Amino acid sequence: MIESVNNPKIKEYSKLQSKKYRDESGLFIVEGDHLVEEALKKTQAVEIYSLDDSYTQVSESVMRKLSSLSTPPNVLAVCKKLEEGELKGNVLILENLQDPGNLGTIIRSSVAFNIDTIILSKDCVDFYNVKVLRASEGMVFNINIVIRDLNETILELKDKGYTVYTTNVVNGTNLSEVTVPEKYAIVMGNEGNGVTEETASLCDEAIYIPMNKTCESLNVGIATSIILYEFSQK
Amino acid sequence: MIESVNNPKIKEYSKLQSKKYRDESGLFIVEGDHLVEEALKKTQAVEIYSLDDSYTQVSESVMRKLSSLSTPPNVLAVCKKLEEGELKGNVLILENLQDPGNLGTIIRSSVAFNIDTIILSKDCVDFYNVKVLRASEGMVFNINIVIRDLNETILELKDKGYTVYTTNVVNGTNLSEVTVPEKYAIVMGNEGNGVTEETASLCDEAIYIPMNKTCESLNVGIATSIILYEFSQK
Repeated sequence: MIESVNNPKIKEYSKLQSKKYRDESGLFIVEGDHLVEEALKKTQAVEIYSLDDSYTQVSESVMRKLSSLSTPPNVLAVCKKLEEGELKGNVLILENLQDPGNLGTIIRSSVAFNIDTIILSKDCVDFYNVKVLRASEGMVFNINIVIRDLNETILELKDKGYTVYTTNVVNGTNLSEVTVPEKYAIVMGNEGNGVTEETASLCDEAIYIPMNKTCESLNVGIATSIILYEFSQK
Repeated sequence: MIESVNNPKIKEYSKLQSKKYRDESGLFIVEGDHLVEEALKKTQAVEIYSLDDSYTQVSESVMRKLSSLSTPPNVLAVCKKLEEGELKGNVLILENLQDPGNLGTIIRSSVAFNIDTIILSKDCVDFYNVKVLRASEGMVFNINIVIRDLNETILELKDKGYTVYTTNVVNGTNLSEVTVPEKYAIVMGNEGNGVTEETASLCDEAIYIPMNKTCESLNVGIATSIILYEFSQK
Protein backbone atom coordinates (compact mmCIF):
# COMPACT_ATOMS: atom_id res chain seq x y z
CA MET A 1 0.00 0.00 0.00
CA ILE A 2 1.27 3.45 -0.97
CA GLU A 3 0.60 5.87 1.86
CA SER A 4 2.90 8.78 1.12
CA VAL A 5 2.10 11.60 -1.28
CA ASN A 6 5.87 11.97 -1.59
CA ASN A 7 6.27 8.58 -3.25
CA PRO A 8 8.21 9.40 -6.47
CA LYS A 9 5.69 7.72 -8.82
CA ILE A 10 2.75 9.43 -7.14
CA LYS A 11 4.49 12.80 -7.41
CA GLU A 12 5.17 12.16 -11.07
CA TYR A 13 1.65 11.00 -11.93
CA SER A 14 0.03 13.87 -10.04
CA LYS A 15 1.60 16.13 -12.70
CA LEU A 16 -0.71 14.49 -15.28
CA GLN A 17 -3.37 17.01 -14.27
CA SER A 18 -1.51 19.42 -16.57
CA LYS A 19 -1.73 19.13 -20.36
CA LYS A 20 1.96 19.92 -20.66
CA TYR A 21 2.96 16.85 -18.71
CA ARG A 22 0.36 14.66 -20.46
CA ASP A 23 1.91 15.68 -23.76
CA GLU A 24 5.49 15.04 -22.57
CA SER A 25 4.76 11.66 -21.01
CA GLY A 26 2.13 10.33 -23.42
CA LEU A 27 0.05 9.36 -20.38
CA PHE A 28 -3.27 10.48 -18.89
CA ILE A 29 -5.51 9.65 -15.93
CA VAL A 30 -9.08 8.36 -15.90
CA GLU A 31 -11.08 8.51 -12.69
CA GLY A 32 -13.93 6.40 -11.37
CA ASP A 33 -15.24 2.88 -12.10
CA HIS A 34 -17.14 3.62 -15.29
CA LEU A 35 -14.40 5.58 -17.05
CA VAL A 36 -11.63 3.20 -15.94
CA GLU A 37 -13.62 0.29 -17.34
CA GLU A 38 -14.26 2.04 -20.68
CA ALA A 39 -10.61 3.14 -20.93
CA LEU A 40 -9.21 -0.33 -20.32
CA LYS A 41 -11.19 -1.74 -23.26
CA LYS A 42 -9.21 0.53 -25.60
CA THR A 43 -5.85 1.39 -24.08
CA GLN A 44 -3.25 -0.01 -21.71
CA ALA A 45 -3.05 0.95 -18.08
CA VAL A 46 0.41 1.69 -16.73
CA GLU A 47 -0.93 1.64 -13.16
CA ILE A 48 -4.33 1.25 -11.51
CA TYR A 49 -4.75 2.67 -8.01
CA SER A 50 -7.66 1.99 -5.66
CA LEU A 51 -8.63 2.70 -2.07
CA ASP A 52 -9.35 -0.99 -1.51
CA ASP A 53 -7.07 -3.89 -2.48
CA SER A 54 -8.58 -4.57 -5.94
CA TYR A 55 -5.52 -2.92 -7.52
CA THR A 56 -2.45 -1.16 -6.11
CA GLN A 57 -3.87 0.10 -2.85
CA VAL A 58 -3.28 3.74 -1.92
CA SER A 59 -4.28 5.94 1.01
CA GLU A 60 -6.98 8.57 0.70
CA SER A 61 -4.37 11.33 0.72
CA VAL A 62 -2.55 9.71 -2.22
CA MET A 63 -5.84 9.35 -4.11
CA ARG A 64 -6.58 13.01 -3.42
CA LYS A 65 -3.11 13.96 -4.71
CA LEU A 66 -3.68 12.10 -8.00
CA SER A 67 -7.32 13.15 -8.54
CA SER A 68 -8.61 16.33 -10.19
CA LEU A 69 -12.02 15.92 -8.56
CA SER A 70 -13.19 17.64 -5.40
CA THR A 71 -14.44 14.22 -4.25
CA PRO A 72 -11.69 11.75 -5.21
CA PRO A 73 -12.83 8.44 -6.75
CA ASN A 74 -12.35 4.91 -5.37
CA VAL A 75 -10.27 3.94 -8.39
CA LEU A 76 -8.22 5.67 -11.08
CA ALA A 77 -5.93 4.48 -13.84
CA VAL A 78 -2.81 5.97 -15.41
CA CYS A 79 -3.13 5.06 -19.09
CA LYS A 80 -1.21 5.36 -22.34
CA LYS A 81 -2.72 7.89 -24.73
CA LEU A 82 -4.72 6.42 -27.61
CA GLU A 83 -3.21 6.08 -31.07
CA GLU A 84 -4.67 8.25 -33.80
CA GLY A 85 -6.39 6.27 -36.54
CA GLU A 86 -7.01 7.03 -40.23
CA LEU A 87 -9.43 9.73 -41.39
CA LYS A 88 -12.44 7.70 -42.45
CA GLY A 89 -16.20 7.32 -42.28
CA ASN A 90 -18.39 10.21 -41.16
CA VAL A 91 -16.23 13.11 -40.01
CA LEU A 92 -16.76 15.94 -37.51
CA ILE A 93 -14.24 18.80 -37.44
CA LEU A 94 -13.99 21.09 -34.40
CA GLU A 95 -12.16 24.40 -34.63
CA ASN A 96 -10.85 26.07 -31.46
CA LEU A 97 -13.44 24.56 -29.14
CA GLN A 98 -12.60 25.77 -25.63
CA ASP A 99 -15.11 24.45 -23.13
CA PRO A 100 -14.32 20.94 -21.80
CA GLY A 101 -17.99 20.22 -21.07
CA ASN A 102 -18.95 21.11 -24.64
CA LEU A 103 -16.21 18.90 -26.12
CA GLY A 104 -17.19 16.00 -23.86
CA THR A 105 -20.90 16.13 -24.75
CA ILE A 106 -20.06 16.53 -28.46
CA ILE A 107 -17.92 13.37 -28.30
CA ARG A 108 -20.82 11.54 -26.62
CA SER A 109 -23.31 12.74 -29.25
CA SER A 110 -20.85 11.86 -32.04
CA VAL A 111 -20.83 8.23 -30.97
CA ALA A 112 -24.64 8.30 -30.69
CA PHE A 113 -25.02 9.63 -34.25
CA ASN A 114 -22.45 7.51 -36.08
CA ILE A 115 -19.49 9.85 -36.47
CA ASP A 116 -16.34 7.76 -37.03
CA THR A 117 -13.60 10.40 -36.85
CA ILE A 118 -13.38 13.68 -34.92
CA ILE A 119 -10.71 16.10 -36.10
CA LEU A 120 -9.65 18.74 -33.56
CA SER A 121 -7.70 21.85 -34.49
CA LYS A 122 -4.50 22.28 -32.50
CA ASP A 123 -6.01 25.08 -30.39
CA CYS A 124 -8.93 23.01 -29.04
CA VAL A 125 -9.10 22.10 -25.36
CA ASP A 126 -7.17 18.86 -24.69
CA PHE A 127 -9.47 15.86 -24.94
CA TYR A 128 -7.56 14.09 -22.15
CA ASN A 129 -8.68 16.87 -19.78
CA VAL A 130 -10.55 15.21 -16.91
CA LYS A 131 -13.71 17.29 -17.52
CA VAL A 132 -13.82 16.26 -21.18
CA LEU A 133 -13.41 12.59 -20.27
CA ARG A 134 -16.19 12.86 -17.72
CA ALA A 135 -18.66 14.79 -19.92
CA SER A 136 -18.05 12.23 -22.70
CA GLU A 137 -19.25 9.47 -20.31
CA GLY A 138 -16.31 7.41 -21.56
CA MET A 139 -17.38 7.68 -25.22
CA VAL A 140 -13.98 9.25 -25.94
CA PHE A 141 -12.72 5.66 -26.07
CA ASN A 142 -15.25 4.60 -28.72
CA ILE A 143 -14.33 7.00 -31.51
CA ASN A 144 -11.23 7.97 -33.49
CA ILE A 145 -10.00 11.43 -32.41
CA VAL A 146 -7.11 13.10 -34.23
CA ILE A 147 -5.44 16.52 -33.88
CA ARG A 148 -4.61 18.16 -37.20
CA ASP A 149 -4.02 21.38 -39.09
CA LEU A 150 -7.54 22.05 -40.38
CA ASN A 151 -6.74 23.77 -43.66
CA GLU A 152 -4.61 20.89 -44.94
CA THR A 153 -7.04 18.31 -43.63
CA ILE A 154 -10.11 19.87 -45.25
CA LEU A 155 -8.31 19.87 -48.61
CA GLU A 156 -7.31 16.23 -48.05
CA LEU A 157 -10.92 15.28 -47.29
CA LYS A 158 -12.17 17.09 -50.42
CA ASP A 159 -9.59 15.17 -52.47
CA LYS A 160 -11.03 11.96 -51.03
CA GLY A 161 -14.51 12.94 -52.25
CA TYR A 162 -15.93 14.36 -49.03
CA THR A 163 -18.49 17.18 -49.05
CA VAL A 164 -17.44 19.57 -46.29
CA TYR A 165 -20.17 21.55 -44.49
CA THR A 166 -19.76 24.62 -42.37
CA THR A 167 -22.46 26.26 -40.27
CA ASN A 168 -23.65 29.80 -40.56
CA VAL A 169 -26.67 31.39 -38.92
CA VAL A 170 -27.27 33.76 -41.84
CA ASN A 171 -26.64 31.95 -45.10
CA GLY A 172 -26.82 28.45 -46.43
CA THR A 173 -29.24 25.58 -46.66
CA ASN A 174 -31.86 24.81 -44.03
CA LEU A 175 -30.59 21.74 -42.13
CA SER A 176 -33.88 19.92 -42.67
CA GLU A 177 -33.48 20.25 -46.45
CA VAL A 178 -29.89 19.02 -46.79
CA THR A 179 -29.39 15.97 -48.99
CA VAL A 180 -26.75 14.02 -47.10
CA PRO A 181 -23.98 12.67 -49.38
CA GLU A 182 -22.16 9.39 -48.89
CA LYS A 183 -19.03 11.07 -47.51
CA TYR A 184 -19.45 14.10 -45.34
CA ALA A 185 -17.48 16.23 -42.91
CA ILE A 186 -19.11 18.88 -40.72
CA VAL A 187 -17.09 21.81 -39.34
CA MET A 188 -18.17 23.45 -36.08
CA GLY A 189 -16.43 26.47 -34.54
CA ASN A 190 -15.47 28.19 -31.32
CA GLU A 191 -18.10 29.01 -28.64
CA GLY A 192 -17.98 32.76 -29.09
CA ASN A 193 -16.82 33.23 -32.65
CA GLY A 194 -17.99 30.27 -34.70
CA VAL A 195 -15.96 28.94 -37.63
CA THR A 196 -13.16 31.28 -38.81
CA GLU A 197 -13.62 32.90 -42.21
CA GLU A 198 -10.48 31.19 -43.49
CA THR A 199 -11.78 27.73 -42.62
CA ALA A 200 -15.33 28.50 -43.80
CA SER A 201 -13.97 29.59 -47.18
CA LEU A 202 -12.55 26.10 -47.72
CA CYS A 203 -15.90 24.39 -47.15
CA ASP A 204 -18.29 23.27 -49.88
CA GLU A 205 -21.62 24.24 -48.33
CA ALA A 206 -23.09 26.14 -45.40
CA ILE A 207 -26.05 24.93 -43.37
CA TYR A 208 -28.19 26.60 -40.72
CA ILE A 209 -30.57 25.30 -38.07
CA PRO A 210 -34.02 26.89 -38.52
CA MET A 211 -35.10 28.59 -35.30
CA ASN A 212 -37.09 31.37 -33.66
CA LYS A 213 -35.48 34.76 -34.25
CA THR A 214 -35.72 35.73 -30.56
CA CYS A 215 -32.85 33.31 -29.96
CA GLU A 216 -29.68 34.44 -31.72
CA SER A 217 -27.76 31.21 -31.45
CA LEU A 218 -27.56 27.82 -29.76
CA ASN A 219 -24.92 26.40 -27.48
CA VAL A 220 -22.29 24.76 -29.76
CA GLY A 221 -22.77 21.33 -28.16
CA ILE A 222 -26.50 21.55 -28.84
CA ALA A 223 -26.08 22.84 -32.41
CA THR A 224 -23.56 20.11 -33.25
CA SER A 225 -25.74 17.36 -31.79
CA ILE A 226 -28.84 18.52 -33.70
CA ILE A 227 -26.89 18.54 -36.97
CA LEU A 228 -25.41 15.10 -36.32
CA TYR A 229 -28.85 13.75 -35.39
CA GLU A 230 -30.39 15.12 -38.58
CA PHE A 231 -27.55 13.77 -40.76
CA SER A 232 -27.87 10.34 -39.10
CA GLN A 233 -31.59 10.27 -40.02
CA LYS A 234 -31.05 10.63 -43.75
CA MET B 1 -20.27 56.22 -4.91
CA ILE B 2 -20.55 53.20 -2.60
CA GLU B 3 -17.10 52.14 -1.49
CA SER B 4 -17.76 50.03 1.57
CA VAL B 5 -18.70 46.36 1.49
CA ASN B 6 -20.30 47.03 4.88
CA ASN B 7 -22.93 49.33 3.40
CA PRO B 8 -26.23 47.83 4.66
CA LYS B 9 -27.82 47.55 1.21
CA ILE B 10 -24.73 45.91 -0.24
CA LYS B 11 -24.61 43.45 2.64
CA GLU B 12 -28.26 42.64 2.09
CA TYR B 13 -28.01 42.21 -1.70
CA SER B 14 -24.89 40.08 -1.44
CA LYS B 15 -27.12 37.50 0.25
CA LEU B 16 -28.98 37.09 -3.07
CA GLN B 17 -26.32 34.60 -4.08
CA SER B 18 -28.30 32.10 -1.98
CA LYS B 19 -31.61 30.68 -3.21
CA LYS B 20 -33.06 30.96 0.29
CA TYR B 21 -32.66 34.73 0.33
CA ARG B 22 -33.85 35.08 -3.29
CA ASP B 23 -37.04 33.24 -2.29
CA GLU B 24 -37.54 35.36 0.84
CA SER B 25 -36.93 38.70 -0.85
CA GLY B 26 -38.42 38.04 -4.28
CA LEU B 27 -35.26 39.54 -5.80
CA PHE B 28 -32.35 38.22 -7.88
CA ILE B 29 -29.15 39.52 -9.47
CA VAL B 30 -28.15 39.56 -13.13
CA GLU B 31 -24.54 40.22 -14.06
CA GLY B 32 -22.91 41.75 -17.13
CA ASP B 33 -24.12 44.04 -19.94
CA HIS B 34 -25.93 41.49 -22.05
CA LEU B 35 -27.94 39.88 -19.23
CA VAL B 36 -28.75 43.22 -17.56
CA GLU B 37 -30.08 44.50 -20.88
CA GLU B 38 -32.22 41.39 -21.46
CA ALA B 39 -33.53 41.44 -17.87
CA LEU B 40 -34.58 45.09 -17.99
CA LYS B 41 -36.79 44.46 -21.01
CA LYS B 42 -38.92 42.12 -18.88
CA THR B 43 -38.63 43.07 -15.22
CA GLN B 44 -37.98 46.03 -12.97
CA ALA B 45 -34.59 46.78 -11.52
CA VAL B 46 -34.50 47.75 -7.86
CA GLU B 47 -30.91 48.92 -8.21
CA ILE B 48 -28.28 48.95 -10.94
CA TYR B 49 -24.64 49.10 -9.89
CA SER B 50 -21.67 49.81 -12.15
CA LEU B 51 -17.96 50.42 -11.84
CA ASP B 52 -18.30 53.62 -13.90
CA ASP B 53 -20.88 56.36 -13.34
CA SER B 54 -23.53 55.02 -15.79
CA TYR B 55 -25.58 53.87 -12.79
CA THR B 56 -25.02 53.86 -9.03
CA GLN B 57 -21.25 53.75 -8.97
CA VAL B 58 -19.57 51.19 -6.70
CA SER B 59 -15.98 50.28 -5.94
CA GLU B 60 -14.40 47.09 -7.25
CA SER B 61 -14.55 45.53 -3.80
CA VAL B 62 -18.31 46.21 -3.60
CA MET B 63 -18.81 44.71 -7.07
CA ARG B 64 -16.82 41.67 -5.99
CA LYS B 65 -18.99 41.35 -2.87
CA LEU B 66 -22.20 41.35 -4.95
CA SER B 67 -20.96 39.15 -7.81
CA SER B 68 -20.95 35.35 -7.98
CA LEU B 69 -18.35 35.38 -10.77
CA SER B 70 -14.63 34.89 -10.30
CA THR B 71 -14.15 37.93 -12.56
CA PRO B 72 -16.78 40.47 -11.44
CA PRO B 73 -18.70 42.29 -14.20
CA ASN B 74 -18.75 46.04 -14.95
CA VAL B 75 -22.45 46.21 -14.27
CA LEU B 76 -25.06 44.21 -12.39
CA ALA B 77 -28.71 44.72 -11.53
CA VAL B 78 -30.83 43.71 -8.56
CA CYS B 79 -34.22 42.82 -10.09
CA LYS B 80 -37.67 41.73 -9.05
CA LYS B 81 -38.44 38.11 -9.86
CA LEU B 82 -40.61 37.56 -12.92
CA GLU B 83 -44.31 36.81 -12.55
CA GLU B 84 -45.49 33.38 -13.56
CA GLY B 85 -47.82 33.38 -16.57
CA GLU B 86 -50.55 30.97 -17.64
CA LEU B 87 -49.86 27.46 -18.90
CA LYS B 88 -50.25 27.83 -22.65
CA GLY B 89 -48.76 27.12 -26.05
CA ASN B 90 -46.08 24.47 -26.47
CA VAL B 91 -45.02 23.12 -23.09
CA LEU B 92 -41.79 21.60 -21.77
CA ILE B 93 -41.82 19.94 -18.33
CA LEU B 94 -38.58 19.34 -16.44
CA GLU B 95 -38.48 16.97 -13.48
CA ASN B 96 -35.73 17.28 -10.87
CA LEU B 97 -33.15 18.79 -13.23
CA GLN B 98 -30.04 19.51 -11.14
CA ASP B 99 -27.29 20.95 -13.30
CA PRO B 100 -27.49 24.74 -13.79
CA GLY B 101 -25.66 24.56 -17.13
CA ASN B 102 -28.15 22.00 -18.43
CA LEU B 103 -31.15 24.07 -17.33
CA GLY B 104 -29.69 27.23 -18.88
CA THR B 105 -28.99 25.63 -22.26
CA ILE B 106 -32.43 23.96 -22.25
CA ILE B 107 -34.07 27.37 -21.69
CA ARG B 108 -32.03 28.78 -24.60
CA SER B 109 -33.02 25.88 -26.89
CA SER B 110 -36.66 26.19 -25.77
CA VAL B 111 -36.82 29.76 -27.04
CA ALA B 112 -35.11 28.67 -30.27
CA PHE B 113 -37.65 25.92 -30.88
CA ASN B 114 -40.88 27.70 -29.96
CA ILE B 115 -41.66 26.43 -26.48
CA ASP B 116 -43.98 28.93 -24.73
CA THR B 117 -44.08 27.57 -21.18
CA ILE B 118 -41.50 25.66 -19.16
CA ILE B 119 -42.82 23.88 -16.06
CA LEU B 120 -40.22 23.02 -13.43
CA SER B 121 -40.84 20.55 -10.63
CA LYS B 122 -40.21 21.98 -7.17
CA ASP B 123 -36.95 20.04 -6.80
CA CYS B 124 -35.26 21.50 -9.92
CA VAL B 125 -32.23 23.80 -9.58
CA ASP B 126 -33.37 27.43 -9.10
CA PHE B 127 -33.61 29.20 -12.46
CA TYR B 128 -32.43 32.48 -10.87
CA ASN B 129 -29.11 30.77 -10.10
CA VAL B 130 -26.37 32.84 -11.76
CA LYS B 131 -25.07 29.86 -13.78
CA VAL B 132 -28.53 29.15 -15.18
CA LEU B 133 -29.01 32.79 -16.18
CA ARG B 134 -25.63 32.82 -17.89
CA ALA B 135 -26.02 29.50 -19.74
CA SER B 136 -29.46 30.68 -20.96
CA GLU B 137 -27.74 33.70 -22.61
CA GLY B 138 -30.57 35.82 -21.21
CA MET B 139 -33.28 33.70 -22.91
CA VAL B 140 -34.74 33.05 -19.42
CA PHE B 141 -36.42 36.46 -19.88
CA ASN B 142 -38.09 35.48 -23.16
CA ILE B 143 -40.14 32.52 -21.98
CA ASN B 144 -42.77 31.78 -19.35
CA ILE B 145 -41.26 29.64 -16.55
CA VAL B 146 -43.46 28.29 -13.76
CA ILE B 147 -42.78 26.03 -10.78
CA ARG B 148 -45.51 23.45 -10.13
CA ASP B 149 -46.41 20.10 -8.70
CA LEU B 150 -45.97 17.90 -11.78
CA ASN B 151 -48.65 15.30 -11.12
CA GLU B 152 -51.45 17.85 -10.80
CA THR B 153 -50.14 19.87 -13.71
CA ILE B 154 -49.91 16.94 -16.10
CA LEU B 155 -53.54 16.05 -15.33
CA GLU B 156 -54.52 19.70 -15.86
CA LEU B 157 -52.77 19.75 -19.24
CA LYS B 158 -54.47 16.52 -20.30
CA ASP B 159 -57.83 18.06 -19.35
CA LYS B 160 -57.00 20.97 -21.63
CA GLY B 161 -56.44 18.60 -24.55
CA TYR B 162 -52.65 18.32 -24.43
CA THR B 163 -50.86 15.14 -25.48
CA VAL B 164 -48.12 14.58 -22.89
CA TYR B 165 -44.92 12.83 -24.02
CA THR B 166 -42.29 11.22 -21.87
CA THR B 167 -38.93 9.90 -23.02
CA ASN B 168 -37.68 6.40 -22.64
CA VAL B 169 -34.63 4.81 -24.22
CA VAL B 170 -36.23 1.38 -24.42
CA ASN B 171 -39.87 1.75 -25.42
CA GLY B 172 -41.99 4.14 -27.37
CA THR B 173 -42.14 5.76 -30.77
CA ASN B 174 -39.05 6.74 -32.75
CA LEU B 175 -38.80 10.55 -32.49
CA SER B 176 -38.56 10.90 -36.26
CA GLU B 177 -41.92 9.13 -36.67
CA VAL B 178 -43.96 11.12 -34.14
CA THR B 179 -47.01 12.93 -35.51
CA VAL B 180 -46.95 16.20 -33.59
CA PRO B 181 -50.40 17.21 -32.27
CA GLU B 182 -51.65 20.77 -31.94
CA LYS B 183 -51.14 20.85 -28.18
CA TYR B 184 -48.16 19.05 -26.75
CA ALA B 185 -46.14 18.85 -23.55
CA ILE B 186 -42.82 17.03 -23.34
CA VAL B 187 -41.50 15.70 -20.01
CA MET B 188 -37.73 15.37 -19.47
CA GLY B 189 -36.17 13.98 -16.32
CA ASN B 190 -33.21 14.16 -13.99
CA GLU B 191 -29.62 13.81 -15.29
CA GLY B 192 -28.92 10.44 -13.69
CA ASN B 193 -32.34 8.86 -13.33
CA GLY B 194 -34.57 10.19 -16.11
CA VAL B 195 -38.30 10.68 -15.59
CA THR B 196 -39.69 9.01 -12.42
CA GLU B 197 -42.02 6.04 -12.93
CA GLU B 198 -44.84 7.90 -11.22
CA THR B 199 -44.62 10.84 -13.62
CA ALA B 200 -44.06 8.62 -16.67
CA SER B 201 -47.22 6.67 -15.81
CA LEU B 202 -49.29 9.85 -16.20
CA CYS B 203 -48.00 10.55 -19.72
CA ASP B 204 -49.83 9.62 -22.92
CA GLU B 205 -46.91 8.47 -25.06
CA ALA B 206 -43.22 7.64 -24.85
CA ILE B 207 -40.67 8.66 -27.46
CA TYR B 208 -37.02 7.72 -27.99
CA ILE B 209 -34.19 9.24 -30.00
CA PRO B 210 -32.79 6.65 -32.44
CA MET B 211 -29.06 6.23 -31.91
CA ASN B 212 -26.04 3.97 -32.09
CA LYS B 213 -26.14 1.29 -29.39
CA THR B 214 -22.53 1.97 -28.32
CA CYS B 215 -23.83 5.16 -26.68
CA GLU B 216 -26.24 4.38 -23.85
CA SER B 217 -27.71 7.84 -23.48
CA LEU B 218 -27.32 11.51 -24.34
CA ASN B 219 -26.77 14.51 -22.09
CA VAL B 220 -30.24 15.71 -21.02
CA GLY B 221 -29.70 19.17 -22.53
CA ILE B 222 -28.80 17.57 -25.85
CA ALA B 223 -31.68 15.09 -25.79
CA THR B 224 -34.20 17.81 -24.94
CA SER B 225 -32.92 20.11 -27.68
CA ILE B 226 -33.06 17.40 -30.35
CA ILE B 227 -36.65 16.57 -29.41
CA LEU B 228 -37.68 20.25 -29.42
CA TYR B 229 -35.96 20.77 -32.78
CA GLU B 230 -37.75 17.77 -34.28
CA PHE B 231 -41.15 18.86 -32.90
CA SER B 232 -40.60 22.41 -34.23
CA GLN B 233 -40.02 20.97 -37.71
CA LYS B 234 -43.38 19.21 -37.96
